[in-house]
Amino acid sequence: MAEQVATNITWHDGTVTRDERKAVLKQKGCTVWFTGLSGSGKSTIAVALEQVLFQRGHVAYRLDGDNVRMGLNKNLGFSAEDRAENIRRIGEVCKLFADSCVITLSSFISPYREDRDQARSLHADGDIDFIECYVECPLEVAEERDPKGLYKKARAGEIKGFTGIDDPYEEPESAELVINTAECSLEESVQAVLDCLEARGLLKAD
Amino acid sequence: MAEQVATNITWHDGTVTRDERKAVLKQKGCTVWFTGLSGSGKSTIAVALEQVLFQRGHVAYRLDGDNVRMGLNKNLGFSAEDRAENIRRIGEVCKLFADSCVITLSSFISPYREDRDQARSLHADGDIDFIECYVECPLEVAEERDPKGLYKKARAGEIKGFTGIDDPYEEPESAELVINTAECSLEESVQAVLDCLEARGLLKAD
Repeated sequence: MAEQVATNITWHDGTVTRDERKAVLKQKGCTVWFTGLSGSGKSTIAVALEQVLFQRGHVAYRLDGDNVRMGLNKNLGFSAEDRAENIRRIGEVCKLFADSCVITLSSFISPYREDRDQARSLHADGDIDFIECYVECPLEVAEERDPKGLYKKARAGEIKGFTGIDDPYEEPESAELVINTAECSLEESVQAVLDCLEARGLLKAD
Repeated sequence: MAEQVATNITWHDGTVTRDERKAVLKQKGCTVWFTGLSGSGKSTIAVALEQVLFQRGHVAYRLDGDNVRMGLNKNLGFSAEDRAENIRRIGEVCKLFADSCVITLSSFISPYREDRDQARSLHADGDIDFIECYVECPLEVAEERDPKGLYKKARAGEIKGFTGIDDPYEEPESAELVINTAECSLEESVQAVLDCLEARGLLKAD
């Protein structure tokens, strides 16, 4: 084995380039940033999309409340300051994953335009595709779904500062993609994101 | 395209499994945690190792001062509390990358045993391989190299709390790998990590 390294390896001065990463992964890294009300369907779409991407041989990774709020951001609460820091760190981690050439799927309510724009600008600095995907859903539909029973608690005053009830959701003004889950099936929603990735040439190396 | 999703895709209830990730990436995710004095050669080994891994078709990603201190951890200073939080976040991000099946190369001085052990235990919780690689180098050799001129500044009192000068480096007691860069060439160092990855079966899917 020692021989192999000495004879077969070209030592580069620099680091692995983005093009070398693309070639090995046969895709380009990017971040798909799902934003929308609780219950709008962000995670459902992200989970299904990740499955389809893997079935097609692509490499994706989801960042969501489960693996971020319990780990990296477990020392953050829900004050305005902590919410902003929560999204800031998620934006930075998305950028690292996207830089590594993984198709990064982030699903957080991320209600404030300013926070989302900050995540976008981080990616722009690194010349990395950032696809803001607004998972649109009328409040009454999301509240009717209420998969985690959170709207009920918010209406009962047991949760304060809940997005859509007593805290604002600022709709994206120029999202790359808008999916209305009150009108689209899950298959159609996933296909819409796939079409967007395809159209941007992100599912191939060059 | 819409047809394809409807007919060719098996919708899973759950998320992409670790085994599915391994199959697509033809490797297992893990974290190689390089620790050692400033100037010991951590980043040099990580950069060269990343190159070799890509040349062999593997997917690796380096976390280092450049992409972490300037981004995710840019709001942290050098107080004891901030140093611990710096390493905590890095440990969490390594775990996410390793979970995504990437071979994750972390190169930070990480001088305190407690902080490194915390990163290790995070990985153990997720049943993810954590390879602590002690990049050993006598202080006098590292100080002689002084690639960034930091030892000189620390000796002159311009930098306070510099590891090895006026802040301790706690040597690993049970590192998976010890590489003495005063005695090994770069090729030998890289080969030692490759051998370790190989012996643990991390460079294949099953």
